[in-house]
Amino acid sequence: MFTFKTHIRMGDTDAAGILYFVNQFQIAHEGFEHFLDSIGLGVGHMLENTDYRLPIVHAEADYKAPLKVGDPLTVCMTAARVGHSSISLLFHLFNRHDKEVGTVKIVHVAVDKTTWKKRALPIEIKDAFEKHLR
Amino acid sequence: MFTFKTHIRMGDTDAAGILYFVNQFQIAHEGFEHFLDSIGLGVGHMLENTDYRLPIVHAEADYKAPLKVGDPLTVCMTAARVGHSSISLLFHLFNRHDKEVGTVKIVHVAVDKTTWKKRALPIEIKDAFEKHLR
Amino acid sequence: MFTFKTHIRMGDTDAAGILYFVNQFQIAHEGFEHFLDSIGLGVGHMLENTDYRLPIVHAEADYKAPLKVGDPLTVCMTAARVGHSSISLLFHLFNRHDKEVGTVKIVHVAVDKTTWKKRALPIEIKDAFEKHLR
Amino acid sequence: MFTFKTHIRMGDTDAAGILYFVNQFQIAHEGFEHFLDSIGLGVGHMLENTDYRLPIVHAEADYKAPLKVGDPLTVCMTAARVGHSSISLLFHLFNRHDKEVGTVKIVHVAVDKTTWKKRALPIEIKDAFEKHLR
Repeated sequence: MFTFKTHIRMGDTDAAGILYFVNQFQIAHEGFEHFLDSIGLGVGHMLENTDYRLPIVHAEADYKAPLKVGDPLTVCMTAARVGHSSISLLFHLFNRHDKEVGTVKIVHVAVDKTTWKKRALPIEIKDAFEKHLR
Repeated sequence: MFTFKTHIRMGDTDAAGILYFVNQFQIAHEGFEHFLDSIGLGVGHMLENTDYRLPIVHAEADYKAPLKVGDPLTVCMTAARVGHSSISLLFHLFNRHDKEVGTVKIVHVAVDKTTWKKRALPIEIKDAFEKHLR
Repeated sequence: MFTFKTHIRMGDTDAAGILYFVNQFQIAHEGFEHFLDSIGLGVGHMLENTDYRLPIVHAEADYKAPLKVGDPLTVCMTAARVGHSSISLLFHLFNRHDKEVGTVKIVHVAVDKTTWKKRALPIEIKDAFEKHLR
Repeated sequence: MFTFKTHIRMGDTDAAGILYFVNQFQIAHEGFEHFLDSIGLGVGHMLENTDYRLPIVHAEADYKAPLKVGDPLTVCMTAARVGHSSISLLFHLFNRHDKEVGTVKIVHVAVDKTTWKKRALPIEIKDAFEKHLR
């Protein structure tokens, strides 16, 4: 399990006074990026030095409690499934009382950077996420 | 069915050159807001003049083709389900060739603006969406 | 003068109940994109078919009145200056009562897409904006 | 001087492959929020427990180098001016080589939360920023 901490920022909220739903996906994706950075396979590296991309084909989120500006969050990422060419990631968001306040699921598929055709997951990506498979 | 047209803007894209997945949810929510505006029940009105809110409890999206800056989109919104206290909305996104390039599902629940407790859908909201039930 | 109409959307606001300042820049940039689209020189075209880019070297905004979700806006764009290699654009935002509620200034500079070095404005861009010079 | 570290995230970039200009303002504002959190006067506290707000009346940024996804940033915040009812903040952004890659200036004004009329800066805010005056 990969964990990171963040906060709800003013720009994450909307006029209803709580987290604007769209930004829960942004928070989860930041976790994905932090994880790739932590294993030396960051998105910047991917874009500049590799011939694959990992576009998202499905994303979903549940919202279990309203989140306000300044609220601290702990985000836990696991891989629900690592397939031949795709990865399903789960993110669980916890508030300061360790209560789960939301979840996100994101499915990435490996494609060729030029043709955008599906391909096998790069071995280093497959290995990294298998280690984090729940 | 409620339809609106939009475009992928520079701010919707990311360094992979395509729509950043998060912004597909933003596009769908703009459709929801356009619809409420069109029936005189806009979000501004809701926040200022009513005692209900319609927070989102679930959202999901499928991405079927990469979308680039400047790409025109036609978004069709229908209500998949109008329940006692919740509404499930479906959004289908079509490109300039009328090919479906993505879908979004968003589930809103009616709550009291002060207690944030679940309540029945306001009758004017229920009526408006039942007319648009698929 | 180039004019377009838009609305403050939920995603543009923050927990203070008004337009989050960052999004006034986004609104202005959408005007720039609409203008380029209208003359057949859209950003998508630029990225795919030309060897120049128009990155932003300076941006500033004034905020003259709080804007709420649902508020309609009319945005007027003019070119304050069209130089050898840069363009200064001004955007004036008006509310439903034709009161100016904000301004944005954005300075673009022409660069080569590969070296990112300053170059002369492409003639079609220079011409298009000179016609809109105040 | 208040300093914090961050990274350019995928959601900060656009199809030109670099930081979308709007998000440099977002990064600066996060610094402002981190600072208020660090002195126990966070925005969440302000919204819930005080009768003032600190809306932005002016913002500007210079962009001195293209920033890519994954690039680390060090952001230094100082107060250029602390007046009777307003604060001018300066943010300097440095890359991994300590080269200044951008600046942001943001001017906040104190207003009453109900009337939205200008008022004197709350003493705790004035004190906090005077300590950080350059």
